[in-house]
Amino acid sequence: MNNMNTEDFKDIGFAKLDTGRKLRRGFSEAVFCECKTKDQLIQIFRTFKDSGQNVLGTRANKEQADAVQKEIEEVKYNEISRTLTLIQKPIKKEGEIAICTGGTGDIPVAEEAAVTAEFYGSRVKKYYDIGIAGIHRLFAKMEDIKKANVIIAVAGMEGALGGVIAGMTDIPVIAVPTSIGYGTSFKGLSALLTMLNSCAEGMTVVNIDNGFNAGYSANLINRKISGVN
Amino acid sequence: MNNMNTEDFKDIGFAKLDTGRKLRRGFSEAVFCECKTKDQLIQIFRTFKDSGQNVLGTRANKEQADAVQKEIEEVKYNEISRTLTLIQKPIKKEGEIAICTGGTGDIPVAEEAAVTAEFYGSRVKKYYDIGIAGIHRLFAKMEDIKKANVIIAVAGMEGALGGVIAGMTDIPVIAVPTSIGYGTSFKGLSALLTMLNSCAEGMTVVNIDNGFNAGYSANLINRKISGVN
Amino acid sequence: MNNMNTEDFKDIGFAKLDTGRKLRRGFSEAVFCECKTKDQLIQIFRTFKDSGQNVLGTRANKEQADAVQKEIEEVKYNEISRTLTLIQKPIKKEGEIAICTGGTGDIPVAEEAAVTAEFYGSRVKKYYDIGIAGIHRLFAKMEDIKKANVIIAVAGMEGALGGVIAGMTDIPVIAVPTSIGYGTSFKGLSALLTMLNSCAEGMTVVNIDNGFNAGYSANLINRKISGVN
Amino acid sequence: MNNMNTEDFKDIGFAKLDTGRKLRRGFSEAVFCECKTKDQLIQIFRTFKDSGQNVLGTRANKEQADAVQKEIEEVKYNEISRTLTLIQKPIKKEGEIAICTGGTGDIPVAEEAAVTAEFYGSRVKKYYDIGIAGIHRLFAKMEDIKKANVIIAVAGMEGALGGVIAGMTDIPVIAVPTSIGYGTSFKGLSALLTMLNSCAEGMTVVNIDNGFNAGYSANLINRKISGVN
Amino acid sequence: MNNMNTEDFKDIGFAKLDTGRKLRRGFSEAVFCECKTKDQLIQIFRTFKDSGQNVLGTRANKEQADAVQKEIEEVKYNEISRTLTLIQKPIKKEGEIAICTGGTGDIPVAEEAAVTAEFYGSRVKKYYDIGIAGIHRLFAKMEDIKKANVIIAVAGMEGALGGVIAGMTDIPVIAVPTSIGYGTSFKGLSALLTMLNSCAEGMTVVNIDNGFNAGYSANLINRKISGVN
Amino acid sequence: MNNMNTEDFKDIGFAKLDTGRKLRRGFSEAVFCECKTKDQLIQIFRTFKDSGQNVLGTRANKEQADAVQKEIEEVKYNEISRTLTLIQKPIKKEGEIAICTGGTGDIPVAEEAAVTAEFYGSRVKKYYDIGIAGIHRLFAKMEDIKKANVIIAVAGMEGALGGVIAGMTDIPVIAVPTSIGYGTSFKGLSALLTMLNSCAEGMTVVNIDNGFNAGYSANLINRKISGVN
Amino acid sequence: MNNMNTEDFKDIGFAKLDTGRKLRRGFSEAVFCECKTKDQLIQIFRTFKDSGQNVLGTRANKEQADAVQKEIEEVKYNEISRTLTLIQKPIKKEGEIAICTGGTGDIPVAEEAAVTAEFYGSRVKKYYDIGIAGIHRLFAKMEDIKKANVIIAVAGMEGALGGVIAGMTDIPVIAVPTSIGYGTSFKGLSALLTMLNSCAEGMTVVNIDNGFNAGYSANLINRKISGVN
Amino acid sequence: MNNMNTEDFKDIGFAKLDTGRKLRRGFSEAVFCECKTKDQLIQIFRTFKDSGQNVLGTRANKEQADAVQKEIEEVKYNEISRTLTLIQKPIKKEGEIAICTGGTGDIPVAEEAAVTAEFYGSRVKKYYDIGIAGIHRLFAKMEDIKKANVIIAVAGMEGALGGVIAGMTDIPVIAVPTSIGYGTSFKGLSALLTMLNSCAEGMTVVNIDNGFNAGYSANLINRKISGVN
Repeated sequence: MNNMNTEDFKDIGFAKLDTGRKLRRGFSEAVFCECKTKDQLIQIFRTFKDSGQNVLGTRANKEQADAVQKEIEEVKYNEISRTLTLIQKPIKKEGEIAICTGGTGDIPVAEEAAVTAEFYGSRVKKYYDIGIAGIHRLFAKMEDIKKANVIIAVAGMEGALGGVIAGMTDIPVIAVPTSIGYGTSFKGLSALLTMLNSCAEGMTVVNIDNGFNAGYSANLINRKISGVN
Repeated sequence: MNNMNTEDFKDIGFAKLDTGRKLRRGFSEAVFCECKTKDQLIQIFRTFKDSGQNVLGTRANKEQADAVQKEIEEVKYNEISRTLTLIQKPIKKEGEIAICTGGTGDIPVAEEAAVTAEFYGSRVKKYYDIGIAGIHRLFAKMEDIKKANVIIAVAGMEGALGGVIAGMTDIPVIAVPTSIGYGTSFKGLSALLTMLNSCAEGMTVVNIDNGFNAGYSANLINRKISGVN
Repeated sequence: MNNMNTEDFKDIGFAKLDTGRKLRRGFSEAVFCECKTKDQLIQIFRTFKDSGQNVLGTRANKEQADAVQKEIEEVKYNEISRTLTLIQKPIKKEGEIAICTGGTGDIPVAEEAAVTAEFYGSRVKKYYDIGIAGIHRLFAKMEDIKKANVIIAVAGMEGALGGVIAGMTDIPVIAVPTSIGYGTSFKGLSALLTMLNSCAEGMTVVNIDNGFNAGYSANLINRKISGVN
Repeated sequence: MNNMNTEDFKDIGFAKLDTGRKLRRGFSEAVFCECKTKDQLIQIFRTFKDSGQNVLGTRANKEQADAVQKEIEEVKYNEISRTLTLIQKPIKKEGEIAICTGGTGDIPVAEEAAVTAEFYGSRVKKYYDIGIAGIHRLFAKMEDIKKANVIIAVAGMEGALGGVIAGMTDIPVIAVPTSIGYGTSFKGLSALLTMLNSCAEGMTVVNIDNGFNAGYSANLINRKISGVN
Repeated sequence: MNNMNTEDFKDIGFAKLDTGRKLRRGFSEAVFCECKTKDQLIQIFRTFKDSGQNVLGTRANKEQADAVQKEIEEVKYNEISRTLTLIQKPIKKEGEIAICTGGTGDIPVAEEAAVTAEFYGSRVKKYYDIGIAGIHRLFAKMEDIKKANVIIAVAGMEGALGGVIAGMTDIPVIAVPTSIGYGTSFKGLSALLTMLNSCAEGMTVVNIDNGFNAGYSANLINRKISGVN
Repeated sequence: MNNMNTEDFKDIGFAKLDTGRKLRRGFSEAVFCECKTKDQLIQIFRTFKDSGQNVLGTRANKEQADAVQKEIEEVKYNEISRTLTLIQKPIKKEGEIAICTGGTGDIPVAEEAAVTAEFYGSRVKKYYDIGIAGIHRLFAKMEDIKKANVIIAVAGMEGALGGVIAGMTDIPVIAVPTSIGYGTSFKGLSALLTMLNSCAEGMTVVNIDNGFNAGYSANLINRKISGVN
Repeated sequence: MNNMNTEDFKDIGFAKLDTGRKLRRGFSEAVFCECKTKDQLIQIFRTFKDSGQNVLGTRANKEQADAVQKEIEEVKYNEISRTLTLIQKPIKKEGEIAICTGGTGDIPVAEEAAVTAEFYGSRVKKYYDIGIAGIHRLFAKMEDIKKANVIIAVAGMEGALGGVIAGMTDIPVIAVPTSIGYGTSFKGLSALLTMLNSCAEGMTVVNIDNGFNAGYSANLINRKISGVN
Repeated sequence: MNNMNTEDFKDIGFAKLDTGRKLRRGFSEAVFCECKTKDQLIQIFRTFKDSGQNVLGTRANKEQADAVQKEIEEVKYNEISRTLTLIQKPIKKEGEIAICTGGTGDIPVAEEAAVTAEFYGSRVKKYYDIGIAGIHRLFAKMEDIKKANVIIAVAGMEGALGGVIAGMTDIPVIAVPTSIGYGTSFKGLSALLTMLNSCAEGMTVVNIDNGFNAGYSANLINRKISGVN
């Protein structure tokens, strides 16, 4: 562990910002906004602003976004994906990631994945509302989807989309269960279990509604396949 | 309730056999063997034997079967479906039920459904191991499947088979989750949730591994569609 | 799969509307409104309006309904069943479906089933608040209920209604658990489990509060029994 | 708490036998045999033998029974209820408890309740296999059942028996879920939830398969109603 | 079942009021208000008003209470127990029920039990905030508590109160888990499990927060012990 | 039990205040505010005010705090930890407890632990936002953390912080899972399970979000190690 | 979907072998042995033997292995990974996958992943028993681990290994929860939840004990990064 | 982290033995035997034998014990606690830990705690079968129990023992839920929840049946209080 520099972060009291992260892990930090106060977010974004780095905030609500943007106007807010982005260094997008959803309700999670993948340097193509209840819609898009290096399959309710796709390709699939549904969907648990139990190998899974990690992981793989990381 | 005859059963102490059932509900009784002793089963089958009625025993293990067959040799045992049948009156099979499975491990449950549906008077066709991990296998059989009046879809693990079929037809689908799988399949719970949350309407669900109720319910519908009940 | 036309839908960006569905599956499309924005719903209903087809929207709240009705005034909203309907081609109702509830709290789900079954072409009769806590109420109606081709039993809390009914008839029963109850009802889970574990065969189950699928599935069966599909 | 004598038990090392219990709580001690070694059971039964008291052992398997009976031959074993009883003082039975089961598989739990209630001084009548799948069997017995002071309803699977009974009487009902069933019965959980969520008030519930506590509690109530405790 | 009069209820469309219930089950009807509209409640209370009977409404919120009281001013509302009562025939209270709570947060459920028990004709004494975290508070009251015919133990969080009480008496105990707590209390599930698994026999359990059924069941037992039912 | 004085509390009707507690258990009482009305809280704090004792209120919201402070102005409210404190006797702080959090979202729970530990007489040092996603932040602080007598590790989501710390020291670790997270964090259940299953021995666990008990338990241990209790 | 050949499998009755799979998905078929009879396995392996293809069998027990090997002696059995392999065409291994385990109990699952990855054409390095209870063991190996294209982290109990690794690299991590543990490990559920909730992005998850899918997915990614698929 | 020596373990292939642990964490290593083969255990114990260190093996079954003892005869096996101990350096026992159980079934877990605490250097006193069903047994022992520095409370079923004890002392309590019970005890889950939700502060909890961690943690605290670590 000779390259672990234990001093390699910025201590701002309530938080230890991982400023050495780009060096250590290759990518800028992302900030999980959900449980942070507006003042904490402003302080965090200002710190990154001052350091000249890019930063991505996820799960930010409108009120948080307004507060941050009022103080640091370069920050962009995407209301569908609920992301805050501060881009101070240009991002070059590589390769291709296909992001598919089962229904329209899954779009916010898919957009979080898309914003994340693009922020970290991947090209993204979107295929929305192609779930298995009308499977011909998926088949109509399949040839295009198979041009990607990685596929992200976002689905709630029964969550079978990813398994059907994985069964037709040799491309790595990352499945994201969403909390869309009611009754026994148990806020995404049903979709999660479907994905974990899929008979179609080559698919791995992330947490319910975790578009961010899906986009991040897909980006890691896509960039390595594209030969840039 | 003028036609409910409260004396309409045979009391043999530990059990009250529903001998009036064929009159009241239209079909002979089935016996759930799992929690019964060998002596109880022998006494039950003998009672039906003596009454000249048909009877179906489900979830009978080999040992129970041997004991019953030793006493009442007309009883047939099917080791895959774990059913005991005593046929004393001929059964005329009507219409058609398609029974599909996702994998080979689902076959015992499918066979229980098949034996049940045939016992109660339905014709059955079987389509095994056509799960969505290799979806072309399902498509190859789909035209044949659509000739049935009712479809039974039996699947464990992710349990997506029924939803894909329901999305392609206007035939009633009865989905049976099986306990096949491991880890987060939670003994069929994952498949059950998938089926309950399916976006493809027209599909209803029965208990995990309950091939009997699937066969029974499909038979009810099939016979009514065929105009015989 | 020679009759699967993969181009058979209308792509409006965020959604792929299944306009070929009536041909393929025999019935018009239904729209799950819960997770859609008002703008998305308006665009979807306008597309169907323009195509001259009927369409049914489920789980629409008052606000969504107002927005859609303001733009397309032919759309009807039913506040109890939370359904939006646009009827442009006359619907002929066939056969008969009996819809029963355990209590008054189950009525909204029962109404969703009723609206759906009627939209797709079934005649419906309603028997509300006849749960087993006062079982004489059920018995008083049983003879009438048995005139239907299919019975829908809607119940929350202990959810035993369907099993009692199924035990007295040879008519297919579709049970709908509702989220009515508190404590260990676990938002409908208790009723769902009761229904799945019923000893009375001939009953199948749908997702908690899923009146839509109950009505849809009952309609499929009722129309086939009536000889019209 | 002036009547709590903290020295009021017999310390035999691994166990503290509640020899003062009959005085304090009015009834002799029962021994839960399931997790005890054969040597521990022998020592416990011998202690009670020597003290001249009655004692009841529950959940004893055949092997444990053999070991105890070999040493203390007055001990009786009931293989169905899995109870060991040592009766050294005569028991006078009072009042009446009705014990009902849904199916034959529930009989062992019902028998444990019966043995317990009789051990503690209640008269018992048994009504087995009268579950709601053939509800006319229950109705045929209802007038007799209503002669009891307390009703115990034992049922697995959907577990609806107790609620139907409670809905027809003003007699206290104690419901016992059993682990009979498969799939989503989840070893009695389904029946337990049904019972807890029953709309028919006047019914209370005990642990899954806990015939002992049902018999004990019913006895407490029955004897007080009979005016003997 | 010669005394089941299947016409013995009043059909007001959305509800079938059990007006024959007092005859059949011995006690007036109670109305579960939670899922009913204000108009439905008014109609129900007016029907009972007109029939001259007493009626109890449970789980009524302030808004519902206001609406009913505006129309039928004799109806009383208790904001803590959330009960509506219309008393048109005098109630004579018999015997004694002790109602205990673990903490102050459990009081609303205890009050629902108290109002119910009194409505149906039992005398009630209350012992609040005597949970086991300071067990001397319980001991100080134990002698008084033991004067009752039935004990109701209401507790959330760990829910151990009932078991400790049951271990010290031969009086029937009815335990009510409450949803008080946080984290792993899982809205009363922890307390429920504690109660179901109690080693102290003689205690039975009702649904989480179900003060009504506890009061109702305790009243049944208390009145029979008092020799009045 | 010769030193249990069963009269040793103050009965104020809805509550029995444990005024003898400091004598019996060594520490002043804490009041769980969450389920109490404002009037109840005022009455409780006034009782302690009048008795001259210190008292700590936990899980108090702003509205409750305002109401209490308006009546008893010496009471202090900490909005982050949601605690109310009334200090009438000076508190001497002993030893040292290290309180660590995985992220910034865990701070409110950590603060509740800190306020509690200090209220009962421990010195506290805080190490926030040192979770394992950037494990070098933890290592940078580890030498300081190891100076404490007890370590409290507060973490949501995956909750691995405590196990990593426990694996590097011989200091007792108390782990507090928090409800921070989403999807399969199941409101802290994921973190709780991680902590309970930790391979690093020497760590014990408290309820989700229970900073109070963590602080209380750590204080007990710290003071005994410091030789003051 | 012009390249989906629906005839592209071999129908052997109980199974439809996906012989066209190598063409369609790029890799040979794997056979899930767990629920298959010995006769079925023999027939399947013989079919592949005759076709000259490679085939991998997973979750085969010793008895199944003996039966298959007796008939087709070229089949190799690995008792630790429980895999059957028939290699008829040489496999060229590319790139590098690092497979890590938390403890020794996780080795069988890790071995299944290793055998799978090698069967499909990846080079594998193993790092066993480096879990976080003694985190210095992990750090000692970290530089080596980081040479891989993909990391597989296999862990039971608390399952924190993958998150710690992911926090230190920019290499894609696939986490495999195992059923190792007891009590609240709930057969791998605890480890699964830890992995899904990890704060360290870049890690995705497979089903409990699913070494096969981990190896398969890692191979897909590794080979694409290596530029060979 | 200057004192983390990453080379500080012995790599024996399948395992990395933490031979530097006594230095780093202050105590010898313990070996979790459950998932290890006999050969692995022999190799591990021999390594420790050769190093002259003490070692403790937990959850070893009889067969494993026989195999290890045959090779290294100094190893002792305790069949109740299922522990293997190799003592090569004398252990000096300090302070005092009280270990209590609710029933006799909890003794094996209590014994694991006792063996562990003694192995690591604590004096232990045992108080078995003093659960709350007969609470006078606990009170009779309470004065003795309070002489300890730490209390371990081991209980299954309802698991209330620890909370009652914690409510009467200011001594740290470590609660161990056991899997003793049936039905809704859910293999210790009920007892675990009771303990986590206890209103009696000062108690912390370990995994179900984890006597080892209870003994280890109690020892850490006891020795620090005794001033020896």
